[in-house]
Amino acid sequence: MSREQLSGQIIEAGRFLYGRGWAPATSGNYSARLSASQLLVTVSGRHKGQLGEDDLLATDLDGNGLEPGKQPSAETPLHAQLYRWQAQIGAVLHTHSVNATVLSRLTLADSLVFADYELQKAFAGVTRHDSQVLLPIFDNDQDMQRLSARVQPWLDEHPDCVGYLIRGHGLYTWGASVADCLRQVEAFEFLFECELKLRAVQR
Amino acid sequence: MSREQLSGQIIEAGRFLYGRGWAPATSGNYSARLSASQLLVTVSGRHKGQLGEDDLLATDLDGNGLEPGKQPSAETPLHAQLYRWQAQIGAVLHTHSVNATVLSRLTLADSLVFADYELQKAFAGVTRHDSQVLLPIFDNDQDMQRLSARVQPWLDEHPDCVGYLIRGHGLYTWGASVADCLRQVEAFEFLFECELKLRAVQR
Amino acid sequence: MSREQLSGQIIEAGRFLYGRGWAPATSGNYSARLSASQLLVTVSGRHKGQLGEDDLLATDLDGNGLEPGKQPSAETPLHAQLYRWQAQIGAVLHTHSVNATVLSRLTLADSLVFADYELQKAFAGVTRHDSQVLLPIFDNDQDMQRLSARVQPWLDEHPDCVGYLIRGHGLYTWGASVADCLRQVEAFEFLFECELKLRAVQR
Amino acid sequence: MSREQLSGQIIEAGRFLYGRGWAPATSGNYSARLSASQLLVTVSGRHKGQLGEDDLLATDLDGNGLEPGKQPSAETPLHAQLYRWQAQIGAVLHTHSVNATVLSRLTLADSLVFADYELQKAFAGVTRHDSQVLLPIFDNDQDMQRLSARVQPWLDEHPDCVGYLIRGHGLYTWGASVADCLRQVEAFEFLFECELKLRAVQR
Repeated sequence: MSREQLSGQIIEAGRFLYGRGWAPATSGNYSARLSASQLLVTVSGRHKGQLGEDDLLATDLDGNGLEPGKQPSAETPLHAQLYRWQAQIGAVLHTHSVNATVLSRLTLADSLVFADYELQKAFAGVTRHDSQVLLPIFDNDQDMQRLSARVQPWLDEHPDCVGYLIRGHGLYTWGASVADCLRQVEAFEFLFECELKLRAVQR
Repeated sequence: MSREQLSGQIIEAGRFLYGRGWAPATSGNYSARLSASQLLVTVSGRHKGQLGEDDLLATDLDGNGLEPGKQPSAETPLHAQLYRWQAQIGAVLHTHSVNATVLSRLTLADSLVFADYELQKAFAGVTRHDSQVLLPIFDNDQDMQRLSARVQPWLDEHPDCVGYLIRGHGLYTWGASVADCLRQVEAFEFLFECELKLRAVQR
Repeated sequence: MSREQLSGQIIEAGRFLYGRGWAPATSGNYSARLSASQLLVTVSGRHKGQLGEDDLLATDLDGNGLEPGKQPSAETPLHAQLYRWQAQIGAVLHTHSVNATVLSRLTLADSLVFADYELQKAFAGVTRHDSQVLLPIFDNDQDMQRLSARVQPWLDEHPDCVGYLIRGHGLYTWGASVADCLRQVEAFEFLFECELKLRAVQR
Repeated sequence: MSREQLSGQIIEAGRFLYGRGWAPATSGNYSARLSASQLLVTVSGRHKGQLGEDDLLATDLDGNGLEPGKQPSAETPLHAQLYRWQAQIGAVLHTHSVNATVLSRLTLADSLVFADYELQKAFAGVTRHDSQVLLPIFDNDQDMQRLSARVQPWLDEHPDCVGYLIRGHGLYTWGASVADCLRQVEAFEFLFECELKLRAVQR
């Protein structure tokens, strides 16, 4: 796919995610694989519902910006880590919803487990509701190298995983395409809302 | 009604239901009666807010696809069962909301009972708020033949019923037309939200 | 104002109220004073987000339909009662929200009292937050004559009141114009949501 | 920036804030610095989602209206106070959400403290999640001179603060531009919703 097409998909994804309340106050960042050696990533600090082509830049697979005057999102190393990890990953979305934030703060454990939801089938590789989807939670950190070093062992042990949470911060999810990521964002957000509503009643 | 008209109604229903959050991540499936012997059903796995005419196909009344290259939704047998059951059913909508999912998981009983809601009058055949609307809950199953076999006795005993829940999965509702189904989806979702809010406060 | 202008305002109000989720599944009904002796009221059972001029009809001040072939809303007597009660009332909106329904079922008392909300100033005649706004709750009834007979004494004792609830059914509010009613619907719905959220946490 | 540009930004902000439910029933008021000695403020009592250029007027830095026939919002003194306090403030938004109202009523203390939220970085001057953002709560008052006199000492002691709450009434936030204020409104509303959801579950 051309840079123009990938830009269009990211811009449209931003409009959608912002409209759903999953990218408030310039939060979140998005990327797509541009070539074997380059990513297309959102520029730091932009309004995610109003992205234009100038709000995206190319980086190398270590997340180093390749366009002078444009600053990649501070979290680009977390995106780059995923593209280096698996060649089939074509897109990464990091969203920042109220429910992801609240649930990751409520959960003292280091992961969430979803079971017996039909919607688990929306995740790549899941075909039955009577399975378990494990979503790890990593503590937040302003040091991206330290954070990615904590993420890597979990990725290596779970080659089929499709997302993780950063506590008080939000969701990362990835897939072959931007559309796959969007489907998974919707599915995760659905499950987050279910879990919070269940806890509000059952407590 | 022509296939073109029914397609248009289903496409529009999908846009509406997706916009309300009742069809996340490609979930849900919809159908309408095309003729005495055929249904029009959504193709498996499509984005319900972006349906086009190609995302629908004809099946027979057993749910067998009649258009090579198009795969009907895996849940088509549950639709077909309803059309075989009652000749006056012209449309079936299966939605997948957070509230339907949560309420069906919270309820250990095999049904929900709604009483003293004015909105019960939105269901075909109900004329008073001081009646009871019974909505059965069936456990989820990936085997559609087994699931429909569990549904059939309940249908036979309740010829006036207009919907059922599958636990952790969502709502089926049916009526003479797509518009009737949409009115009932709105009414059920209203009641689900009421019940959850009541439980969150009363608990 | 001409019938055409009042129709336009009611049609637009319906679109707004339906969009906010306050008129699900054909619920609710709306009216405006057409002349000294006539009202304009919504026809029974219509989709409130899709009203057209044909979905309105003139009635007399007793709520009797004046246009053969058009059936006024079954609750027209409750509208007519208000126009007979005070000459300055120009419009009445009856909405049907989840929060109005839930709060009226949760409250065993025969009224809600709002105090110390700045938004109380949105109601006609209220100029301070440190006042009390009393909203009565009447039990639901399918017999409109019996229901209006229970409402009348309360109206007579509270000439400044701007609304009431019917339990499990919804809100009536009135004012000089459709715009005044819409402002009050927004204010009541704001207060309902506040009260429910407070109860969910404080309980 | 010209008056026309600032008007356009305020009108657009009103449409956005009303659409989010943060300006119901004509509540809220907005302003921008017009020159060294003048503000542009919303006229009292207007629908915030339908503002036009006529719904704004110039005032001096004491909040006195400079356009005969136009009444500035009753809360203009609170806006004027902020522009006098810091020369770099270019815009002030006062919003009125359910969550701000509920949280300020639930909190008996005289402030809210936000900690360990990544989104704290959306506030001017905050660069880390592991900091604390303090948001004071002042009791509501219909006397704006008395209310501003209670606000002033807190401003003087906290030169970096970017907002305050009035109990049962809403949020004030300010910044160099309308866009900065909007980003901060989104961030505060995100945090309010997080806190309320946490309390609903943890209680």
